[in-house]
Amino acid sequence: MKLATIRTATGTAAVRIDDGGAVELGAADLGEFLANPDWKTVAAAADGPRHDLAGLDYATLIPRPEKVFCVGLNYRSHILEMGRDLPEYPALFAKFARALVGAHDPVEMPAGSEQVDWEAELGVVIGTEVRHATPEQAAAAIAGYTVVNDVTARDFQYRTIEWLQGKTFERSTPVGPWLVVDEGTPGEISCEVDGDVVQKADSSDLVFSAAELVAYISQIITLVPGDLIATGTPGGVGHKRKPPRYLAEGSELVTRIEGVGEQRNTLVKGN
Amino acid sequence: MKLATIRTATGTAAVRIDDGGAVELGAADLGEFLANPDWKTVAAAADGPRHDLAGLDYATLIPRPEKVFCVGLNYRSHILEMGRDLPEYPALFAKFARALVGAHDPVEMPAGSEQVDWEAELGVVIGTEVRHATPEQAAAAIAGYTVVNDVTARDFQYRTIEWLQGKTFERSTPVGPWLVVDEGTPGEISCEVDGDVVQKADSSDLVFSAAELVAYISQIITLVPGDLIATGTPGGVGHKRKPPRYLAEGSELVTRIEGVGEQRNTLVKGN
Repeated sequence: MKLATIRTATGTAAVRIDDGGAVELGAADLGEFLANPDWKTVAAAADGPRHDLAGLDYATLIPRPEKVFCVGLNYRSHILEMGRDLPEYPALFAKFARALVGAHDPVEMPAGSEQVDWEAELGVVIGTEVRHATPEQAAAAIAGYTVVNDVTARDFQYRTIEWLQGKTFERSTPVGPWLVVDEGTPGEISCEVDGDVVQKADSSDLVFSAAELVAYISQIITLVPGDLIATGTPGGVGHKRKPPRYLAEGSELVTRIEGVGEQRNTLVKGN
Repeated sequence: MKLATIRTATGTAAVRIDDGGAVELGAADLGEFLANPDWKTVAAAADGPRHDLAGLDYATLIPRPEKVFCVGLNYRSHILEMGRDLPEYPALFAKFARALVGAHDPVEMPAGSEQVDWEAELGVVIGTEVRHATPEQAAAAIAGYTVVNDVTARDFQYRTIEWLQGKTFERSTPVGPWLVVDEGTPGEISCEVDGDVVQKADSSDLVFSAAELVAYISQIITLVPGDLIATGTPGGVGHKRKPPRYLAEGSELVTRIEGVGEQRNTLVKGN
């Protein structure tokens, strides 16, 4: 089952994406929809107004999540190839909702940055409130998966030891197009820039799996439906290339996870 | 003028705190109230239901801010005494709303942390939406000041290079009791633990002033009414003492800023 938030003539709507069209679920967005404890049953049974798939306008998956957690280095092969030890704990940082955009929206490059970089990531969305979760409870609390590109202004990220300011630029982070629920394991994750494959990895090659991240974060703070976790990016970011490669106005960014979905975004100048 | 969010028999209410009592402002909390562009005029004129000052139960000042930004090292004298250079940019990190508590609420120590520490801070609340603000626009966008204690689990903070996980523990950060609006310049900031003065500084001794922080952050993302900025803590934290000193169950924490307000919180075991 695939669920999304789409833009409509009157605002936004949570929908189920079927082969034949998008079916409205009776909520203004997927975050509001997931707050209903029976969301999975309601989603499967929904038979509301329909929209043609052609021309669907995807909003960011969860427009106002209470929390967006992001994870630093988390791909095992990438950490080992960099000659680093595997971390004992996940490096967590935050992003604010205002940074999020839809899967086909323009991605805004912050004014003043000369080093805007890509970071394809598997996104995890919480479907059930959890606190101090066991790994099993954590796995059960995951609503499903989505695609995230944690587009990063490297020059701003490294201005100080805390990364936030390079990570939470307005309208910079595509999330979506949809949430995949109970459709198996996410496969290969890849990122293309102007047709060049720049990242490719197995999205299960994580030091901290989705369920482990949920369990870990839930020791710190209650996770609630609609919370989003971006699980980290594999090797191949532009900043580490020799010479470095960055995104520019007009760059075409394609972020894809097998079994999850695909995003296509064009880079534009932000204000 | 002092504005606050109090708990009432039926929920919460935004109020103006007068010498003779608290006057309801017609909004459920101060965040909602500040979303009205005319909030300052409405607050001054309000004549709603009154509550006795004795027994007022202060909720956290802004229960659901869109964003909470915190600043790392920002006290000039403390940075210089540590032998460091003054930073070129503020080190910014985030906190989620679920971490916030009221000025007299219990502060919960996270299970598993043995190093819970204090950080008295001047809090700045945004009153007007700003993006790419000049220093003058930034100053005008500040609704007022409050008291924050950025209570920190040092062991969790330093598990990785990103501080978030030691900073956003559930119900750990007192904010309030009130917002002071147009009442002059905040003065001495201090923190007491069980009657010992552990921090004392001039709250204007900042490398990046409140207006400079607002202007800087507004280059990254739009600041909106109710957003909170914790401007950093002066020297005297427990983790840097020899031997280190930490908070424990039952510790009494008093955080005070002259001209702004005072918090009194007891440390309790979190779940």
